[in-house]
Amino acid sequence: MSLFITFEGVEGAGKTTQIQILTQNLRQRGIPVLATREPGGCPLANEIRKLLLSPDQGEMASSAELLLYLAARAQHVFEVIRPALAEGKIVLCDRFADATTVYQGYARGIDLQSIRQFNDFAVSSLTPDLTILMDMAVEKGQDRLVQRNNKTGSRVDRLEMESIDFHRRVRQGYLTLSREFPERFHVVDAAATQDEVAIKILKSVEPFLT
Amino acid sequence: MSLFITFEGVEGAGKTTQIQILTQNLRQRGIPVLATREPGGCPLANEIRKLLLSPDQGEMASSAELLLYLAARAQHVFEVIRPALAEGKIVLCDRFADATTVYQGYARGIDLQSIRQFNDFAVSSLTPDLTILMDMAVEKGQDRLVQRNNKTGSRVDRLEMESIDFHRRVRQGYLTLSREFPERFHVVDAAATQDEVAIKILKSVEPFLT
Repeated sequence: MSLFITFEGVEGAGKTTQIQILTQNLRQRGIPVLATREPGGCPLANEIRKLLLSPDQGEMASSAELLLYLAARAQHVFEVIRPALAEGKIVLCDRFADATTVYQGYARGIDLQSIRQFNDFAVSSLTPDLTILMDMAVEKGQDRLVQRNNKTGSRVDRLEMESIDFHRRVRQGYLTLSREFPERFHVVDAAATQDEVAIKILKSVEPFLT
Repeated sequence: MSLFITFEGVEGAGKTTQIQILTQNLRQRGIPVLATREPGGCPLANEIRKLLLSPDQGEMASSAELLLYLAARAQHVFEVIRPALAEGKIVLCDRFADATTVYQGYARGIDLQSIRQFNDFAVSSLTPDLTILMDMAVEKGQDRLVQRNNKTGSRVDRLEMESIDFHRRVRQGYLTLSREFPERFHVVDAAATQDEVAIKILKSVEPFLT
């Protein structure tokens, strides 16, 4: 069985934690899982990720930003995701093509049709079997981020510094996509407790495991 | 007066030297010139250039390679070329969008129509006023490269390591483009002496200076 599941949502929604929980759960059942994330997931994409998230980077052309995300994704699909799917693994990916449609399209205003065409080129038409959208109020996500950064001593990255309006457009963009592709998207209330969210996600995944 | 001139051709054709000669010549006449190159020309694009040319990089997806070139170009146009043209400078650029059409399209086989569309997005429709194609036999260019690398002790980069067939497709691709856009392309025999080539280039540029 090969299965490609992506996790999307605003910053601070808890995607990373939930991917860890699901990975552990599936492995305990003896199912081979590869958990990965974007931007990143392979050496070249990690280098690109550094360029994208560096707060020291001057003003970046929105076209350059889009193309860097797509380049990282193209290599990630080529080097990591496709080979893992070919080996029959379940691939869990923290952000994928939808993130580009939402961040660069809905939030930054780049023409959606161009983005779809570019995305399709980058992933050579790979589409997730299931997309978990972890939805929550933007303010709540921001609060969580601040807490996390204080705790870990992390610097705020370039995307986190965007305005609250930007993050609101991101959230609305994701919700619009979920209505456009209702069969692929499963929306989960990310403001619920960690256990509740984990159970909800497992319920979405179960039908694919049989 | 603002004027955008690009230099194209196989590796070792002498583009860098000729750009230096032309820059000096124009500056002596009091004409403001910006000489720049691709991939590179600004901090972000230089970082991307390092990723693209590193011989230590593993196998790169051809889609990722294309998208990285385009990302570097998008930032270069945004940060360097457009502002210089807006200030009334003559911009001389070592390789530009045609290089992508030729290297990734004609030589690597990526669909030409997609490349044109992506290029157009990356440069937000900026087209050179004049393109100097420095044409020469591929073998001769390779000989010059080997000499240069021996002299400077440079390592051979990822593009230079491509097969002779690859470089032949590059040359043919450029010649095809020059026939498709005869008004913009001026083909110069790069096997002639440095002075002869410099005079030929100056003749192509002169009509734009009056």
